[in-house]
Amino acid sequence: MSHLISPDPTGGRPVVPGNGRLRPLGLAEVQITGGFWGRRQAVNAEATIGHIEHWIEREGWIGNFDAAREGRLLGERRGREFSDSEIYKLMEAMSWEIGRHPNADLELRLKALVDRVAPVQLQDGYLNTRFGRVGQGGRYTDLEWGHELYCYGHLIQAAVARARTHGDDLLISVARRAADHICDTFGPQGIQSVCGHAEVEMALVELARLTGEQRYLEQAALFVERRGTGVLADIEFGRSYFQDDIPFRQATVLRGHAVRAVYLASGAVDVAVETGDRELMDSAVLQWENTLARRTYLTGGMGSHHQDEAFGDDFVLPPDRAYSESCAGVGSVMLSWRLLLASGEARYADLIERTLFNVVATSPSFEGTSFYYTNSLHQRRPGLPARVDEASARAAASMRAPWFEVSCCPPNVARTFASLAGYLATSDDDGVQVHQYADSQVRTTLPDGRAIAFDTYTRYPEDGAITIRIVGDESRPWTLTLRVPSWAEGATLTESGLTRPVRAGTVSVTRTFGLGDEIRLRLPVTPRFTLPDPRIDAVRDCVAVESGPLVLCAESVDLPDGTELDQVRVDVSRSPVVGSGAVERPAALAGAIGSGGMQAHPVASVTARLIELDPDQVWPYESGTGAGLGDTTGEVPATEVAIPLIPYHAWANRGPAAMRVWLPRARPLSSQISGTASAAGPMGD
Amino acid sequence: MSHLISPDPTGGRPVVPGNGRLRPLGLAEVQITGGFWGRRQAVNAEATIGHIEHWIEREGWIGNFDAAREGRLLGERRGREFSDSEIYKLMEAMSWEIGRHPNADLELRLKALVDRVAPVQLQDGYLNTRFGRVGQGGRYTDLEWGHELYCYGHLIQAAVARARTHGDDLLISVARRAADHICDTFGPQGIQSVCGHAEVEMALVELARLTGEQRYLEQAALFVERRGTGVLADIEFGRSYFQDDIPFRQATVLRGHAVRAVYLASGAVDVAVETGDRELMDSAVLQWENTLARRTYLTGGMGSHHQDEAFGDDFVLPPDRAYSESCAGVGSVMLSWRLLLASGEARYADLIERTLFNVVATSPSFEGTSFYYTNSLHQRRPGLPARVDEASARAAASMRAPWFEVSCCPPNVARTFASLAGYLATSDDDGVQVHQYADSQVRTTLPDGRAIAFDTYTRYPEDGAITIRIVGDESRPWTLTLRVPSWAEGATLTESGLTRPVRAGTVSVTRTFGLGDEIRLRLPVTPRFTLPDPRIDAVRDCVAVESGPLVLCAESVDLPDGTELDQVRVDVSRSPVVGSGAVERPAALAGAIGSGGMQAHPVASVTARLIELDPDQVWPYESGTGAGLGDTTGEVPATEVAIPLIPYHAWANRGPAAMRVWLPRARPLSSQISGTASAAGPMGD
Repeated sequence: MSHLISPDPTGGRPVVPGNGRLRPLGLAEVQITGGFWGRRQAVNAEATIGHIEHWIEREGWIGNFDAAREGRLLGERRGREFSDSEIYKLMEAMSWEIGRHPNADLELRLKALVDRVAPVQLQDGYLNTRFGRVGQGGRYTDLEWGHELYCYGHLIQAAVARARTHGDDLLISVARRAADHICDTFGPQGIQSVCGHAEVEMALVELARLTGEQRYLEQAALFVERRGTGVLADIEFGRSYFQDDIPFRQATVLRGHAVRAVYLASGAVDVAVETGDRELMDSAVLQWENTLARRTYLTGGMGSHHQDEAFGDDFVLPPDRAYSESCAGVGSVMLSWRLLLASGEARYADLIERTLFNVVATSPSFEGTSFYYTNSLHQRRPGLPARVDEASARAAASMRAPWFEVSCCPPNVARTFASLAGYLATSDDDGVQVHQYADSQVRTTLPDGRAIAFDTYTRYPEDGAITIRIVGDESRPWTLTLRVPSWAEGATLTESGLTRPVRAGTVSVTRTFGLGDEIRLRLPVTPRFTLPDPRIDAVRDCVAVESGPLVLCAESVDLPDGTELDQVRVDVSRSPVVGSGAVERPAALAGAIGSGGMQAHPVASVTARLIELDPDQVWPYESGTGAGLGDTTGEVPATEVAIPLIPYHAWANRGPAAMRVWLPRARPLSSQISGTASAAGPMGD
Repeated sequence: MSHLISPDPTGGRPVVPGNGRLRPLGLAEVQITGGFWGRRQAVNAEATIGHIEHWIEREGWIGNFDAAREGRLLGERRGREFSDSEIYKLMEAMSWEIGRHPNADLELRLKALVDRVAPVQLQDGYLNTRFGRVGQGGRYTDLEWGHELYCYGHLIQAAVARARTHGDDLLISVARRAADHICDTFGPQGIQSVCGHAEVEMALVELARLTGEQRYLEQAALFVERRGTGVLADIEFGRSYFQDDIPFRQATVLRGHAVRAVYLASGAVDVAVETGDRELMDSAVLQWENTLARRTYLTGGMGSHHQDEAFGDDFVLPPDRAYSESCAGVGSVMLSWRLLLASGEARYADLIERTLFNVVATSPSFEGTSFYYTNSLHQRRPGLPARVDEASARAAASMRAPWFEVSCCPPNVARTFASLAGYLATSDDDGVQVHQYADSQVRTTLPDGRAIAFDTYTRYPEDGAITIRIVGDESRPWTLTLRVPSWAEGATLTESGLTRPVRAGTVSVTRTFGLGDEIRLRLPVTPRFTLPDPRIDAVRDCVAVESGPLVLCAESVDLPDGTELDQVRVDVSRSPVVGSGAVERPAALAGAIGSGGMQAHPVASVTARLIELDPDQVWPYESGTGAGLGDTTGEVPATEVAIPLIPYHAWANRGPAAMRVWLPRARPLSSQISGTASAAGPMGD
């Protein structure tokens, strides 16, 4: 029954919709050649993937498969119920990495992992180290928390990546048997429920796309439809935690556990695309829109509850208790990418860019061997360094940690970086669309045979100048479409010697391009102030600074001696100025070798005044009545300091530090009343 | 060995230190006769205690004892591992209630409960329905989460309440056997560990005070010393969760799980008082001071994390995600009361007052049959009403719920209200100190035989006039000391026909008082604005309104039609004005009968302008540069509305509503620039 699967001639793509506005390009068609993302990909290949291999061995998570094979799993199994999935995500990262850049050693390591996993699969396709054996929990007896289908989802995604970049092998047959088992077990006549953690939906659709097996698509659609009808048990956090509170097509906003929510929405979009289910697609778009308008951090981060790793209510976006899980960032990119392919709308690429630069790139250290699980926008006190030799409790570290008891983020970041070129550009019948800017090359052929070849040169995001140079000699005209980010007020396009302003959205050039022709897009990355909506209570009267796609932050290590971050009040009447340093300069220091040449440098600075903080205050509230109340906030009018700002993603790479994205604003000098407040008495009159 | 314990001639007191600055008065010496707390006590007696009895039966938590007695517990046990403690807290509430006001029916109900519990105690004193039987977890095998010693603590506190209000009975002998068992098991040669939830420490000290048995005190001291040395396992939240991170005497601030923290500190103070351990006491005082200065809500509430019910870092006090658990409020009162007795310092009574009016009184509904577990200072959207017939998940309800899966708060509030008179006044060798103001009577005798008798008349906190009328004819002089709350700027004292200003702290009058003499304290309860410390990021640029000891709030049901709470911007140049209604007026409506005549009425109002909120915004951040940035916040200068404010504790008694304690401030009109912000473009220039 199983026919041989050939590698994808495009070089492999994470998502291959059967229809939609745009066709994704594969890893053989678009490659990152350097710059910001090139450095990240290099560190990912050279450090992160090996680091993850080390830790899954060390923690015994891959050892669970050996123990299962040898019949000694009972009592010896290690890790949480979903630890199998981390091996699968690593396999996916390895598959993309090999697809991006052939690597015989990595090929052997991947094969070795598959050889340890495959024998654990049972005759009927069931594969899990945590359930199903005598003395373990029974199969599918704990759908709320057991993660069995979630693990299959990652297994299947790994297999799809492998098949597209390499062609058929053992991993694909394991995944197909697992998928058949899922359909047998959870089909129309099977268990009428879903997994507590969405994930398998999009995996099944992709496997259907790969194999042509409609049954997988039908099963994914069933899972999407069932969820939301209370098929899972109620739990302390409520059924919204796993989106089982409202059917997907009736929901209007993402809610509950953020990773679950974005994974489910991604799967729903996949189903909608393949089945032509307009209502389902419309619901996904509406949920995306409302989430963006009311439940998303400036960084693109999603999730504001530590308790349940969940979305908060509308406008509940505290910077200091931001959860903004790295994996929710990865999932948000997956969701927006699917919506971009379906619709062609630049807003989705805008969010992908914001999330990649400010969430996904924030998780790993420059060295690629420690990670943020959550991505707080405000660190009050310099934290303790994470131990380099010890797994951290989930999300607990104030510094990046090498590994976590729940360690979904490192391999999730790794698979994203390894496949990142696949998110840069697309094509349609008329030409190519560039969505993300990086030193890169595009080589593709349109359906009618027009051959497109161009290279992109840029120091983006440090600099907003992007040059696209045509390196092919296609004689027929075609259309080059470039995204103009929503923040890029004043952008210009230069082509054929003419420079013209371009508006946010996309700009297209249709003509016959000659070899060596250059199209230049200039995006102003001048640092700019950004204000929050007044409903975001947690950052009222604060300002952030952005530069191009980068959210900036103040880190305490850059402050003058004796100054605390809490004292800083930004003078918004003085525009931020460009800082001295490049975003990530090649490191001259030997110590920075392992970090791919990345360093944290100020890219902008703002002018601030300082306030005095009372170290001896006994009660942090002060009463008074009448006019002038609180105009005396202890601000010291004489002080004026420049506060350097670095890219948020680069913070905590220079040791423990306090950090703020949102900085309180200074009061206008005109309205100030001299003198500081009395600690004892009422204020004003 | 057990000698008969006589009832406390004072009528019973929750805490009876062996030494200290002040001697507490018992329930026979001070009684609440009406007013705010009189109504609360009446509802507690008439509704709450019976409500709790109903639910512990219904949930099977008392039934666990029957099942244990009948050997059918295994497989039938219901409730969480600490459910036994709720029965004990109820017994304590009943004991105080009977001591406050003899009640033959309640006496029978208490006796019936004791008769169901006592037979479950094993020969060696062990008593717990969750551990120790074949098929259950072994005794003390899960000290981190098992709560066995915590349950004993509540058992012992119930027994102490019973002994002091009634004298020896079965409950006391059960508790003594349990205490002996604890000492045998956890003594110097026993298990070198502590309970994950502090509580037994203060119970053991009180039992030592009651019985004279020093061994109990020594055991309590051992528990205090052991904790903080890593005797418990590390957990996801870290050992600070159960204060096992730092020895108590080295700690400088309360941290971790808030209820655990305040219970532990209370026990440490008890130990320090009895052993004369100055260092231990100093540490408790320092922790209290730093917690008050940096980790306490305006309401007195403690705990700002939902995740682990814990204190946050300094100044992390988000109103919308406030945890401020009712039980942490109860525990904070217990801690401050101990420190007040030891030191005589009014600051402790200040915090007790703030916490009683704004946390403990907030938990129960007016009817006394539904409760807040957490006490949020900001409800964004009207919540769903809690089901009256169903236990809520812990802390999940946005409205008060009748019961919780973890239902510590209802009986904790009940025992506090039943014993509340015991927290009003104290005596020393020279006279009597009044710490809390309520319609009440004091009848006590000083050590040298001077007989003190006075009544207090007041409509406090609705009105700040307090009249103390001497109703005895003691011929020798004595000293009457009255607390002047820290907020009472402009307070006056009138006695012997003279009125004089008095400062925050205490004011004393020493003389011979004649029958019918009146001393009048006038505390200005004029509503006042209160500003937060600039380090409390979550309420930057906001203002609260307080009136006397009451924190006020705006509730959406009082807003003009079509106005949302998010639109309100308070004009702080206009002082708040006294509102139309009394705090809690006797209800004319039949429907309010069951609520002891309590109703929510505005006590003040502020002048506000409204801002426009953009319902169609696609991204809640907006960029711009330069002067004038963000002075255009969509404020509508023409609008001016009066926003009624009710006492915070009275909120959510009129159906689901949005609510805010902290209200954003309007910008000064002089600095406003007309026009609203463009949603698309940059702001300013």
